[in-house]
Amino acid sequence: MSSGTIYGLGLGPGNPELMSVKSDRLLRNARHVAYFRKAGKSGQARRIVDGMLPENVIEFPMEYPVTTEIPLTDPRYNEVLAAFYVDCTVRLKELSDQGEDVVVLCEGDPFFYGSFMHLYTRLKDHAPVDVVPAITGMSGAWTATGDPITWGDDVLTVLVGTLSEEELTRRMSDTDALVVMKIGRNIDKVKRALTAAGLFDRAWIVEFAQMPNQTVTKLSEAADGVTPYFSIIIVHGQGRRP
Amino acid sequence: MSSGTIYGLGLGPGNPELMSVKSDRLLRNARHVAYFRKAGKSGQARRIVDGMLPENVIEFPMEYPVTTEIPLTDPRYNEVLAAFYVDCTVRLKELSDQGEDVVVLCEGDPFFYGSFMHLYTRLKDHAPVDVVPAITGMSGAWTATGDPITWGDDVLTVLVGTLSEEELTRRMSDTDALVVMKIGRNIDKVKRALTAAGLFDRAWIVEFAQMPNQTVTKLSEAADGVTPYFSIIIVHGQGRRP
Ligand SMILES: C[S@@+](CC[C@H](N)C(=O)[O-])C[C@H]1O[C@@H](n2cnc3c(N)ncnc32)[C@H](O)[C@@H]1O
Ligand SMILES: C[S@@+](CC[C@H](N)C(=O)[O-])C[C@H]1O[C@@H](n2cnc3c(N)ncnc32)[C@H](O)[C@@H]1O
Repeated sequence: MSSGTIYGLGLGPGNPELMSVKSDRLLRNARHVAYFRKAGKSGQARRIVDGMLPENVIEFPMEYPVTTEIPLTDPRYNEVLAAFYVDCTVRLKELSDQGEDVVVLCEGDPFFYGSFMHLYTRLKDHAPVDVVPAITGMSGAWTATGDPITWGDDVLTVLVGTLSEEELTRRMSDTDALVVMKIGRNIDKVKRALTAAGLFDRAWIVEFAQMPNQTVTKLSEAADGVTPYFSIIIVHGQGRRP
Repeated sequence: MSSGTIYGLGLGPGNPELMSVKSDRLLRNARHVAYFRKAGKSGQARRIVDGMLPENVIEFPMEYPVTTEIPLTDPRYNEVLAAFYVDCTVRLKELSDQGEDVVVLCEGDPFFYGSFMHLYTRLKDHAPVDVVPAITGMSGAWTATGDPITWGDDVLTVLVGTLSEEELTRRMSDTDALVVMKIGRNIDKVKRALTAAGLFDRAWIVEFAQMPNQTVTKLSEAADGVTPYFSIIIVHGQGRRP
């Protein structure tokens, strides 16, 4: 019996119309679908494919262990997560060994800050894995602003909100176009860094890009104190344009 | 009569299977298809959709003016290009005014260093324009390497090979993950900058990512003196991973 394939399936920013023809087909014919979710939540990736999966699909929700009491810097944090990824990997490998294909749902593009990468590195030498690229959340976000992100010689810097304020400020001060991901509770720090870098007035925040609940707001007009859940900050480049 | 819509249609990296469901549908039902090409060439974007267009489609190849004798720094260079973009815009607007939809083919994602942006800025206030995001060439390229591009807190810098060697070196020396686009004749300069930044041995070059003629090569093993036509250089981030 030949092994099944584990698909790291990029869903794109969240609109089913923006999924690739390949992802769409794999989803509509899936037998096993795996996805990450937080305990007690339905999971964003799973919500995106609502209504697309065959009726008899077998679901494998991979529930993140609760790590809220462990500080990010504590080595136990990484240990708990690593053990969790190993558990998921074992189950996926089992299915593959039984000849079953499994689709693992990935928000955006799987290889761009994606959680699937933690399974991928553990699986790739032991089972057939096929990574299906997809539209990134940031492409969804800059398209939503109605303004191109990079022109001519523009440099694009992609940062995550978890960096230190100093590092954010330094890098924001030295780029033409900017994307900031993983914002959430880091929003106030990110805003201070944008202000220090002189970019605050040019910054947009896009929540739920390309989803039904999308919002596109100039950061300077966004309400204070709101914690944007699933959002990306965009500063457009202003390079050469004939 | 209502105006037709001008679609800035992202094709993704070049594999029709990786186009969005929306782009696929618009292409298979198109009445007017416009695309850039160099004089005497068939045009890369047009080649990507070979076999997908309806038989009676009306094609509008937008041929770049020959500018080889004008140096990039000469103001006439920009003037010639600007006049060309205005001409294209006039024709597209005419079609829209007649109630005709037009699909403009864009390699990768339209708003990411795309030529369509030059038409978009001239059209958007005068005709209905719909930009369809797509998988970027860089997503196609890093997926082709079989290795994720960014982990955890990694900073991603996207550069174009047209920057000066000094600027390339400076920015390459200060990033976790790197993408270099628009390489072509700049390959030797880009290689020198990668070497100076200590990244040469970690760099990959992907030609024609996700196309039938794709090649994926460690830059250190790539033959010297070759001018890669349609290629992207990738240096993978090595950030936090539990
Ligand atoms: C773990 S990363 C995954 C990124 C994803 N692989 C991609 O290609 O965009 C999660 C972050 O992606 C961003 N993101 C992804 N898709 C988004 C969307 N549709 N709208 C807003 N933010 C999005 C948010 O910043 C979020 O914090
Ligand atoms: C004018 S830019 C257009 C970029 C495009 N809009 C995108 O989203 O990737 C042209 C450059 O894109 C890069 N590129 C785009 N798609 C590619 C692919 N499939 N393979 C290799 N390089 C690609 C090359 O570096 C090329 O010089």
